Amino acid sequence: MEISLIPTAEQISRESLINKSAVMFDILRASSTVCTALANGCQAVLPVSEVADALALAQSLPEQTCLLGGERGAVRLPGFHLGNSPSEYTRPVVQGKTIILTTTNGTRAIRLAAAGSGLVIIGSLLNVTATARALVAAGRDVALVCAGTRGQFSLEDTLAAGLVIRQLLKLLPSGEATAPAAAPASDGPYAEERPLYKGRPLVLTDAAMAALRLAEYYSANPLQALHDSLHGQKLVQLGLASDLAYCAQVDLLEVVPVYRQGKITLAGEAAVR
Amino acid sequence: MEISLIPTAEQISRESLINKSAVMFDILRASSTVCTALANGCQAVLPVSEVADALALAQSLPEQTCLLGGERGAVRLPGFHLGNSPSEYTRPVVQGKTIILTTTNGTRAIRLAAAGSGLVIIGSLLNVTATARALVAAGRDVALVCAGTRGQFSLEDTLAAGLVIRQLLKLLPSGEATAPAAAPASDGPYAEERPLYKGRPLVLTDAAMAALRLAEYYSANPLQALHDSLHGQKLVQLGLASDLAYCAQVDLLEVVPVYRQGKITLAGEAAVR
Repeated sequence: MEISLIPTAEQISRESLINKSAVMFDILRASSTVCTALANGCQAVLPVSEVADALALAQSLPEQTCLLGGERGAVRLPGFHLGNSPSEYTRPVVQGKTIILTTTNGTRAIRLAAAGSGLVIIGSLLNVTATARALVAAGRDVALVCAGTRGQFSLEDTLAAGLVIRQLLKLLPSGEATAPAAAPASDGPYAEERPLYKGRPLVLTDAAMAALRLAEYYSANPLQALHDSLHGQKLVQLGLASDLAYCAQVDLLEVVPVYRQGKITLAGEAAVR
Repeated sequence: MEISLIPTAEQISRESLINKSAVMFDILRASSTVCTALANGCQAVLPVSEVADALALAQSLPEQTCLLGGERGAVRLPGFHLGNSPSEYTRPVVQGKTIILTTTNGTRAIRLAAAGSGLVIIGSLLNVTATARALVAAGRDVALVCAGTRGQFSLEDTLAAGLVIRQLLKLLPSGEATAPAAAPASDGPYAEERPLYKGRPLVLTDAAMAALRLAEYYSANPLQALHDSLHGQKLVQLGLASDLAYCAQVDLLEVVPVYRQGKITLAGEAAVR
């Protein structure tokens, strides 16, 4: 099993995702919002890249069951019911509803992450362990996709990816802690004695290894990473420090949001295999 | 002062370097080799991207004072005097010589890093503090350029960049530890209360912050990072574990190799301003 990390949505290619399970992270705040909405009984989230497309899609859906959510520049869009703060997506507001969501980075990244045709999970700090379990159940190579902030590497998304890797290594039957396999693999320049998973070497790319070490660095205080990040600092300036505190809660939720054919819904254990 | 990090040579753009001091890291092994050669009295290193160009350049220089060095696939090139192991670049071998060097990633990255027209330093773990001092003396924004391995993020180069950042923060008169300035800057969406350096806010991009945290994670044992990296593991497989041990020695050397007009030489304090 190979675990790779794609640092920004711009670096997604079909080759980097093909036949893999993908997880898309945009933890400040699109993926945290999606996880929260679905945990609170929302039927489905429809991620849309452009504001105009969101408005057009809303026209085609029954008004009573549909909500428009999203932001540009971290601020709610005019005419929308909801912004991009998970705190708005409470059970009384979202239960039974379909939410059309458009955000600066995250919704585009979700659609790009679907290029590989495999499983696409929406990951955040809120659902690290649930995400890792779903990846183990799927059994494929894993690509962790960080949305990034305006094309740049983002600290907080990389932290979330690293925490998922840490959890994966704990869950895999022969994780980092086990002894190398007796017979080294020999299928490539970098093959060597490594732990095996389902008969194949378990390989972390250097970017995945760096994310793992970052997760270990911040594991005692994930909120610190959100405050260290430039986007986190921007949200604090906008008076949204409480969103950082919410989004930093590792494993608050037991949800596995899965994107398929334009729609994010909750996956049962069977659905993610 | 802004400190940014470019994770791979492929991501270098003129815009990302213009008017900045750049440091190029390819610590396994090109930049460690350059630092070692110059510390051992080599006159100049001429980095060349292609093997054919290296051979042509050698023809044009006096045979007695010129050595050909370099690798492809981590192995010495046929007809070359030296490979890419710093252990070969001893004083008896290199003193007073000009070395033409061609390596898979590093030499190309050095030339690309020169796109910004400012100072270009060759950085490694061997010369972290000397590099940081030269950057402070230059006083410009800093771009830390990791060569990467075959277009991919490399753990060991990012560690070296992070250690330079850590040292920079120690050397700057108002580093991370100081209180925010009284008057917040207001010149951009991410501007906020930050430590000032020469009247300007000190800003780390998220990638630079991640490198800093990685450096803090590995600071007690930098060699571990080299063994965690895929390229480090490849070198170990090739029997070159001793090169990892050598390259992991933080601040072994007091050199600041500077690239200018096709040539790397040692910079005196005056020359790097």
